Amino acid sequence: MNVAILGFGVVGSGVAEVITKNSDSILKNSDVSLSLKKILDIRDFADSPFASLMTKNFEDIVNDDDIDIVVETMGGVNPAFDFAMRCLNKGKHVVSSNKELVATKGFELLEAARKNNVNFLFEASVGGGIPIIRPISRCLAGNRISEIAGILNGTSNFILTKMIVEGMSFADALALAQQLGYAEKDPTADVEGLDAMRKICILASLAFGSHVYPEGVYCEGISKITLSDVAYADSADCVIKLLARTRKLEDDKILVMVTPCLISKDSMLAGVNDVFNACLVRGDATGDVLMYGKGAGKLATASAVVGDVIDCAANDEKRKFFGWEAAKENCLASHLEADTALYIRAEKTDKALIDSTFGEVKYLSYDGCDEKEIAFVTGTAKEADLMGKLETAGIKVLSLIRVADY
Amino acid sequence: MNVAILGFGVVGSGVAEVITKNSDSILKNSDVSLSLKKILDIRDFADSPFASLMTKNFEDIVNDDDIDIVVETMGGVNPAFDFAMRCLNKGKHVVSSNKELVATKGFELLEAARKNNVNFLFEASVGGGIPIIRPISRCLAGNRISEIAGILNGTSNFILTKMIVEGMSFADALALAQQLGYAEKDPTADVEGLDAMRKICILASLAFGSHVYPEGVYCEGISKITLSDVAYADSADCVIKLLARTRKLEDDKILVMVTPCLISKDSMLAGVNDVFNACLVRGDATGDVLMYGKGAGKLATASAVVGDVIDCAANDEKRKFFGWEAAKENCLASHLEADTALYIRAEKTDKALIDSTFGEVKYLSYDGCDEKEIAFVTGTAKEADLMGKLETAGIKVLSLIRVADY
Repeated sequence: MNVAILGFGVVGSGVAEVITKNSDSILKNSDVSLSLKKILDIRDFADSPFASLMTKNFEDIVNDDDIDIVVETMGGVNPAFDFAMRCLNKGKHVVSSNKELVATKGFELLEAARKNNVNFLFEASVGGGIPIIRPISRCLAGNRISEIAGILNGTSNFILTKMIVEGMSFADALALAQQLGYAEKDPTADVEGLDAMRKICILASLAFGSHVYPEGVYCEGISKITLSDVAYADSADCVIKLLARTRKLEDDKILVMVTPCLISKDSMLAGVNDVFNACLVRGDATGDVLMYGKGAGKLATASAVVGDVIDCAANDEKRKFFGWEAAKENCLASHLEADTALYIRAEKTDKALIDSTFGEVKYLSYDGCDEKEIAFVTGTAKEADLMGKLETAGIKVLSLIRVADY
Repeated sequence: MNVAILGFGVVGSGVAEVITKNSDSILKNSDVSLSLKKILDIRDFADSPFASLMTKNFEDIVNDDDIDIVVETMGGVNPAFDFAMRCLNKGKHVVSSNKELVATKGFELLEAARKNNVNFLFEASVGGGIPIIRPISRCLAGNRISEIAGILNGTSNFILTKMIVEGMSFADALALAQQLGYAEKDPTADVEGLDAMRKICILASLAFGSHVYPEGVYCEGISKITLSDVAYADSADCVIKLLARTRKLEDDKILVMVTPCLISKDSMLAGVNDVFNACLVRGDATGDVLMYGKGAGKLATASAVVGDVIDCAANDEKRKFFGWEAAKENCLASHLEADTALYIRAEKTDKALIDSTFGEVKYLSYDGCDEKEIAFVTGTAKEADLMGKLETAGIKVLSLIRVADY
């Protein structure tokens, strides 16, 4: 089958490489013959081994009836959405690694795929080369998912690891991440949680069956975390990780949030360091299942894309039952309504006031901690109630981090 | 589609429960309508809600043309193999959770499935409810697997965890596992590594494309591990885990072995405790990917079986490209030919002799260790060479455990 690639960046060029290099083993293992026919990019790649396949005109691809499968690795919503829709409407399968596209336009693309009896697949959009989307949708088919928690952004996890293991400041760790090419010049999407938020929206949509849009999802990044927070967490046998979480509540509303969390060092998620990602899925039958690996990287992500391409080719005559329905109105729960425990670092406050405000709390300290501060972990209660108590008591909060239990 | 179950034990009754309880959500999520039609068991289940479906006669199932999918959860090779073959030859899909059957007869069953254009699937045979088989075969399709290492037996991992975390002796931990129902009266298959060996044979067959039979695979269990080994390992920042490993060597031979190993506490595998399982897959494109969860349990295993049943139903008209070829002759490498480092606990020996025998070694000690012993870790070399040196030097070995690097 003939494949075209939209966007010859890191992932797109990796896909070209994997398809070309592994075509023999793909044929042997999957009985699928893949041939790369065209590549769209506005840039010139005269010296590339794929130079003869390059085009700058999308019409060359969408109007080529010999192209069966289109890989979209451009990133962004425009023009990726328009291109993907036109390919689906022409009866071509589309495979995407673009989390922004899937998070914001997934339902429309899945609908178009349904109508045209083709596949729209996107394993690489979450977790790079780690199998996450397919295990959730297929292997857990006989299982009801109640909750997902993931470390889904390698850049922020790298920064936190440097802060935790080497005592680097946030600013120094970010600079190092940029120097190593893990973080972009403008690191906002990574360190403020937007990237992880798009990914957890995709997983929430898949797990709970209706589109969860990024708008309205509560999102906090790691830029305000200090080494003193890291040390207090350590004193409680915890580490701080940026968790993207989703959970179905009793009223069927869906809670989706991205925030730093304190998690116990005993948790499998606590051992996920550096640029590694992990995704924990809690099901009624399976209990907790965790998938772990490098969440990014040219060949890792490309291999996930090619896995989807093979799946399209092997099921060419038929669309897979896969995806989700339209968003439900008011389906999102507010994080303020959910139960949580909080880690608080505050300006020195009388313990009697804290005790009378929260009942039993656990006070934290470490060698060399600032005498002008106080840190503690509250019991579990509705977040809105805990916040209300903090305000009423006039406690001057310096850091507030949720405590998660995985 | 109509389903029959062979064997109404723990897993079989779990499958009946999941299919019945979740049929609505299965229809909604996968557009597959499943109906349980018959259950084979020689025992009486007059009080079961499924009593009306029970039969003691296999012919009632194999000759019923309305039955499309047969689930085999009997365990053992006979008569499971005969029954599965007859169902495949009658054009029925077969789903099995039986690792012994797949490890010893997988190729013949896959061949029969190919000939009859039906599926033979067995996700539940390794790792219970953890998705392992499908991610390896599908998601890693664009990826070359070089190595797999797994903690694939929950019982032995539970025992080791009790020894490591609570300082329990092997005998006490085994007795506790039996009391909790994690270990059988005759625990040989679990504690001597046979169960893990069957599972790693299945994964090796899948990853490297030709059947790897259990015969000739090197297998060592955990029954000889002492608390003193655990303490020496701890002093080297390591834990002892029973690892099932396979790796393709440079001469294309396949190394398969099950042995206790020292692994660094930093390894993701080191955090896999209690009855949990994990499987690490090393690929050329993806790097290390790890899948983790409860490796057993009625509903976890049943949900994996039902996932396969859904897959059969959704792809009814067509067999999936999945499986492996016939075994290659002399395909197994000897563990003695592979490179490894060794942890040795021996009767007190002059350090000068050890140094002159092995070059640089790392001596281990802990508070309260036995003065009449000596423990050390060698450098990496061919195992046969290290064993030869031990013998030549006349070192009286009390424990010998391989050091793994994941």
